[in-house]
This record gives sequence, structure tokens and C-alpha cells, in this order.
Amino acid sequence: MSEVYAVRRGLLRDRYAAAGSAAALVSRPANVRYLAGGAPPGAVLLLGPADDVLLCPRAPTGAPAHGRPDEGLRVSVLAGTDDDPVVAAAALAGGLDAGSLSVEEHDLTVSRHRAMGSAAPGLRLCDLGTSVEQLRLVKDEEEIACLRIAAEITDQALGELLESILVGRTERHLALELERRLVDHGADGPAFATSVGTGPHSGQGRHRPTDRRVEEGDFLSVCLGANYHGYRCEIGRTFVIGTSPADWQIELYDLVFAAQRAGREALRPGAGYRDVDHAARHLLVSAGHSDCLRPSTGHGVGLEIDEDPQLAPTAMGKLDACVPVTVEPGVHLPGRGGVRIDDTLVVRPEADGGPELLTITTKELLAL
Amino acid sequence: MSEVYAVRRGLLRDRYAAAGSAAALVSRPANVRYLAGGAPPGAVLLLGPADDVLLCPRAPTGAPAHGRPDEGLRVSVLAGTDDDPVVAAAALAGGLDAGSLSVEEHDLTVSRHRAMGSAAPGLRLCDLGTSVEQLRLVKDEEEIACLRIAAEITDQALGELLESILVGRTERHLALELERRLVDHGADGPAFATSVGTGPHSGQGRHRPTDRRVEEGDFLSVCLGANYHGYRCEIGRTFVIGTSPADWQIELYDLVFAAQRAGREALRPGAGYRDVDHAARHLLVSAGHSDCLRPSTGHGVGLEIDEDPQLAPTAMGKLDACVPVTVEPGVHLPGRGGVRIDDTLVVRPEADGGPELLTITTKELLAL
Repeated sequence: MSEVYAVRRGLLRDRYAAAGSAAALVSRPANVRYLAGGAPPGAVLLLGPADDVLLCPRAPTGAPAHGRPDEGLRVSVLAGTDDDPVVAAAALAGGLDAGSLSVEEHDLTVSRHRAMGSAAPGLRLCDLGTSVEQLRLVKDEEEIACLRIAAEITDQALGELLESILVGRTERHLALELERRLVDHGADGPAFATSVGTGPHSGQGRHRPTDRRVEEGDFLSVCLGANYHGYRCEIGRTFVIGTSPADWQIELYDLVFAAQRAGREALRPGAGYRDVDHAARHLLVSAGHSDCLRPSTGHGVGLEIDEDPQLAPTAMGKLDACVPVTVEPGVHLPGRGGVRIDDTLVVRPEADGGPELLTITTKELLAL
Repeated sequence: MSEVYAVRRGLLRDRYAAAGSAAALVSRPANVRYLAGGAPPGAVLLLGPADDVLLCPRAPTGAPAHGRPDEGLRVSVLAGTDDDPVVAAAALAGGLDAGSLSVEEHDLTVSRHRAMGSAAPGLRLCDLGTSVEQLRLVKDEEEIACLRIAAEITDQALGELLESILVGRTERHLALELERRLVDHGADGPAFATSVGTGPHSGQGRHRPTDRRVEEGDFLSVCLGANYHGYRCEIGRTFVIGTSPADWQIELYDLVFAAQRAGREALRPGAGYRDVDHAARHLLVSAGHSDCLRPSTGHGVGLEIDEDPQLAPTAMGKLDACVPVTVEPGVHLPGRGGVRIDDTLVVRPEADGGPELLTITTKELLAL
């Protein structure tokens, strides 16, 4: 396992060395974890100019949050309780005459960046940009295996909920129960705040559960996902409560289903991000729903629940094999509710059978 | 209600005007909420140079997270889905010839700060510092009322758990059940991730629940709190499982109890932060536990669960009346477990009866 992290750090080293830096400081938590294999909260990773060091704030109590750091890394726990690891890293790099240090300017606050400059006046701070995020785009099979387990757990939690009585229960309670079931089945926790929307709340992307109760005739939308060893997946389904969906419900469901299928079928190595979005979006726009669409049709998943790529109308770039993404079009009609269908899939070449669907709960319109 | 927020904004205006700024941009979420009364995720608040504006990112879906903004505020929803509200605010302030704009450098990333500079080249960006955090230190009675309700909910959730069978259940399940009960009793959600530690995990500050099951003879430490209308409180208790605590357990409990009481009794307007810490800490140090103590004995609570003041050995400053803080000393013996006792209290003058204890669950050593 240790090798994986060393290889990743080597790839990053090539990037910042090519940009003329002797060292880099990685501070964004998901990026630290990606390169270190596990780190206590607040830890940062200094790569070069000598050996790589994971700098950890003092006095982490309780179990390590995300597994243990790679054994190939030197771990340094700061002495002072108020010490900021990024400032300590700057002092260390400055003391080693690194010359320049690449930092994640999209993560560091202005105050921390300034404190780094003060701690190492001779050090030139430059921008590492989103180099680590770019390395994280394409997943290896071990990462995909974690996502696959996360999806299995998610399907199990959702499947159990569907077997229970739903009418009369509140959105908040259903959301909490889903989260409990995720943990029951082995999740480290929910991948994000579980969303449950009933009736007029249904069909929204990240609706926060309220005290509204499930009623006969409602649409019920749920969106949940497990975090398994740090990897996060997502599933969204919409159901109808009661025996006979109304005509408008069937019609809307069929439309969103068709859009979601079109999006899934557009996933292939080389497909433009915007083309996948268009495949799903244009069906909803043609049906007159352009006003109520969300800015993107899907997004990457991995160590964060919402990472690159964004499947959106203005997104630049093309999909690669082994990139996991969500496809999650939806329509929400204000005052009435709506439908949202969301899967996590891994982009695969056609020769390998096309996109690998991780979240396999049925997408038929179930009447519960 | 609207007046409260206008008054708060007026106080902040005095501060940045005194520092020579014509306008300020507040971006830290809890600070935005404090001044705006409620805001969708990602919203930022521009005060001056003309009327105050809450700039919101486009397409917030679902219910507003934290109540509605104050009606006295102009609300502006950005047109583009990729638009960053802080950049839009800089452009707006630049267009109004504000001259200089105070920003929260401890919140803004270097990248966002730079994008603001590019959007408004004529605008001088200076540092607002923690002005809003300082305003938030002393709470008004309405804020304290929210904390009081949060504490009632927390006591109820904990009380119910104590009536149930605990042996054989995992830390994770107990934590999830506590969170469900918080919501049952009216919390908007947990104030922070609920901590449950059994046996060797007991007595730690923010132990993350594992799959360890409660056993006879264990110490059981729980730490939880409700979020009510954005205000967050905290309670921590340690129990012993089974009928007869061991001598070392009774001894350790009595010690931490005495330290926590000393900390509570040191709370009064004018007391130094470090003096409150010392009152609790020195008892634990005298008993030989200096190695395993956390850096602080308590902290402020409010719109964030961990805000100023810090009750720590090197903290500067003195308590004011109406500052809510936690007092939470603990001792953790590696491999054996430990004790932690944590209350939320409001500093009050002696004439008003001294510190107001919000979390009233008993601190006797209960054998469950």
C-alpha cells in the first residue's frame, strides 16, 4: 500500500519541480489524505526539499479520523498547542534553503499565507494550483473498490427503508434512519447530509429535511451516500406514496428517467463534460423545464463528495476512463414537487462494457 | 427582531470606519449569520459604501439553512452559477468608489482575495481582522435564550439514553441514537459530531465513536449538544457501567469533578481566561496528570461550537458578563480510560446569582 502514496507524491513532485519549485506544501485535507494515506485533522504535508514530512497539530485526541499515515513518511507533531502546521512547514522549508515553496492558494487563507511569509522571509511562496486535485481525477482500482463498497452499503440502507412504513414519518426522521442504516452496514459515516424531500419538497438537489410528514400521493425524494474508508458515493431516487401515481407524476418521472438514462449513456472516455450534461439537459429543456434546472447534471466523487469534473454546460474537458461521476438530473416544480434520479458510475471504455453502475437500486417508479 | 441586526451592523461600521475603511465585506459564515440574521450557504455581506447587501450564490435549492435574512437588508442573487459572491462584492464596492474595503483575511483564501483584487483594481483591500468575532463574544438575552433551549434539548436526549440498556451496544450506535433524540426534541441538528467513548476510549475530548461495545466495568464518556436556531451548546458526562465502580474509578471521578467545580466557581465577570483554566488545571496537575491534559479547559459557544474565549494557560483577556463558555476538564489514562465532565454556563455577576448553569444533568457518578 505504501508504494501507492509514494508514487502519487512522485507524480506531484514532477509537477512542482517542472514549475521551478524545490518543495510543495499540501494543506487541503482531502489532498493531504490522498498523498499521505491518512492524517489527523489539521495535518499538512511538506514535500521536499529534504524528506517528506507530515506536520500534525499537537494533541489530537481520540482515534485517528482517517486511517494511519503511510509508513514511508516522517511524522512530526508540533510542540506548541497554538502552532499552525503551515507556518511550521514554511519555517522548515526556509531553514533548508528551499528557495521557493509551492502552496495551495485556493486552500490557504490570506492570514495563514502571510504568517508563512513572516516565518520564512527568504522563501518565495508560489501557487501549486489544483495539481493534487488533477491527480485525484482518475482513480486506481483500489479507490474504485472503496467506492463500490460505499455504493453497496448505500443500496442496502435505501433498500431497507423502502420495506418500512413511510406514511406519517417526517423527513428528518427518515434522513436520520437512513444515516443509522449506513453505519449499520459498515459505513464510516454518511458521505454528506442525507436529503429527504416529501410532496412539494421533492425533486430538489440538496433539500434539508424538515418536519413535514410523508402523505399519500406525495412524491418522496431521497439522496444519500456512504463514506467508506474516505471514499464517498451518492444515490438519489424518487418514489410515489400510495397505490396510484397521478398522470403528471408518471409523465414527469418518465421525462427525468429518460434524461438520466441519456446522461448515463453519454459517459465514455473522450466524451466532453458539457456533452454529457447536454445529453441529459436538452430533454428537460425541450419539455419546458429550463427555469428549474440546476447548474450541473453531475460531478466527480472520491475523497470528497463534490469534486472535479463538473458536468455542466460551460465545463471544459473530456472524461477519462476510471473517473467516477454522478448523473443526477432533476426537475422541481415550485409548490408541487418533482423528480430527481441520481447514480454514481465509473467511466469505462465500451470494450470493458461501458460505464460501470455502482448504485444499483431500481429506477422503476415504485409506488410505496 | 430586525433592529438587532441593524444595531450589530452599526457597531461593526463604527469599527471599520475608525480604521479608515468605507466598506467591509463579511464572508465567514457564522459572522454573516450574526449580522444578517440568516443567510443561504455561501452568502456574504457587504456593508457600505451605499446600502448593505447580502450577496447570495445562484441556485440555492431546498429550504433556507438558517432562517431568513433580516428584512432591512437588500438581497442580491448572483446571475452566473460560477460567480463568487466575494468577487461580485469587490466589483460592486469598486464601482461605488469605496476606496478601501475591509475583508476577513482569516477567512478568505489567497485565490479568492486575488480574484477580488483583479475585479476591482482601484480598491484597496485591508484586514477587518476578527472584529465580528469580538462583537459576538457577549451574547444578548435572545441569544442566551436559544442556548438555554439548546441545553434543555441536550439534557433531555441524554436523560433518555440513561434509561435504556447500554451494555453490548456500540459507541457508534449510542452516538447516532443521541443525535436522533436531539432532533426528536426539537434541535435543528447536533451542534457537533457526538462523541461516545467506552472503556479505554473514555475521558477523551472528541473521541470518534468506534464499533467497540459497552462492557461491564467500563467508564462511558459522552459529549453531545444541540443546535437550536444556530446556537450550539455542549454537555459531557462520564458514567460507570455495572453496580460497583473500582476504587481507581471513584478516585479519578472525584478528582475531575473537583477540578470541574473549581473551574465553574472561577467564572465571574473580570476573571482572567487563564485564571479559570488554572483553577481547574492545577488540581489535575497536582495529582500528577499534567501529561494527559488538553490545551484548554473550556471555550466560548454560540453560533459556533468552539469560539472565543479560550480558557487556556496562555490566553489573554478577562471574562465579561453574558459570555457563555464550557468548563470541561478531563483526564485520560492511556489504555485504561478516564473521566471528562463538561458543562455550558453563562458568566453572570455574583449579584445575579453567579454563573448560570445551562446543562443541568446530574454530575454524581452514576452507575448504569
